[in-house]
Amino acid sequence: MSSRTLRPGGRAARVQAAVHQATRELLDAHGRAGLTVPMIAAQAGVTPSTIYRRWGDLGELLADVSTECMRPDGEPADTGSVPGDLAAWGEQYREEMSTEVGRAMLRDVLQSCGNWGPGGGRSPCMSFTADQIGIIVARGVARGERVPSVDAVLDTLVAPIIYRLLMDAVPPTPQQVARWVQACMQGATKQARAA
Amino acid sequence: MSSRTLRPGGRAARVQAAVHQATRELLDAHGRAGLTVPMIAAQAGVTPSTIYRRWGDLGELLADVSTECMRPDGEPADTGSVPGDLAAWGEQYREEMSTEVGRAMLRDVLQSCGNWGPGGGRSPCMSFTADQIGIIVARGVARGERVPSVDAVLDTLVAPIIYRLLMDAVPPTPQQVARWVQACMQGATKQARAA
Repeated sequence: MSSRTLRPGGRAARVQAAVHQATRELLDAHGRAGLTVPMIAAQAGVTPSTIYRRWGDLGELLADVSTECMRPDGEPADTGSVPGDLAAWGEQYREEMSTEVGRAMLRDVLQSCGNWGPGGGRSPCMSFTADQIGIIVARGVARGERVPSVDAVLDTLVAPIIYRLLMDAVPPTPQQVARWVQACMQGATKQARAA
Repeated sequence: MSSRTLRPGGRAARVQAAVHQATRELLDAHGRAGLTVPMIAAQAGVTPSTIYRRWGDLGELLADVSTECMRPDGEPADTGSVPGDLAAWGEQYREEMSTEVGRAMLRDVLQSCGNWGPGGGRSPCMSFTADQIGIIVARGVARGERVPSVDAVLDTLVAPIIYRLLMDAVPPTPQQVARWVQACMQGATKQARAA
């Protein structure tokens, strides 16, 4: 993602911020049907070729904007226990991703999935998620609780939420999320606290 | 999917077969970069407007062709036990979906995911998978084995394969698939055989 390598406040960063903001405004106002690169360029006050040069095409730009929207605002809520934290985080994730906006972001992000996968890096969307779960697990270790591995939570809780959202006729339910959190905790083990 | 409602041998079914075959041939010969609806129409011997009318755009046509490619050729291998059947099926699924062709098909299918989801039906890709798992589970019930539910296998084995393929830096491994099969069997229960 271009956003990672930009010097904050530099010209490239300012162009990126303007283009991202213009894209979000046009999406809010008109949705994505009929959205074009020249429309976004006019709104952002840059030339269309600036956008094509930086992002390649509209799909890549939408993926970049959606990835930024998925970046978490802060740490997961601290409920005092790992199962509580996972339940609260999982339910919020399920709810946000099940909205029309969440599903559209997910589709945008997946459109550019040729950018990672074998030979590339992990998708930023998965990295954000793994970081949030890592915080929950680290808090549990510090409290001396039994904790699942981050990978186990990705596979047992996050994966079925995403799979059902992408493929199933109905979105996953809070009851399913609660069951998947239980399944995560079945494989939890006690880990040594860092000194 | 239009293929479900066509009268076999009718004009619409013949047009669809010709367009699907032309698409597969052009994909094999040139890949998808540069593929256009007029090219496919010329190869299939139909007008471009026939394709636009039936499929809407190239993305929908590719999704339709990829869905047909994902249709299973037959029943899952019968190894004599549910864990054996799930391990064999899961490993074949992981291997096929991890290829360049499998990943491209998955992306094509997901591009048209606005067609299902809340208010729509389950994606054909998930339906094919659920049917295959249903066969394995039914064989286990007939043998008097402990079996997981089809939904548990979708969430515990299929979902992490797809999630990792779409999002992670490296594809899932045979060792991960084996672990996920074990996790499926942990929730298995004995079910009454049909009379």
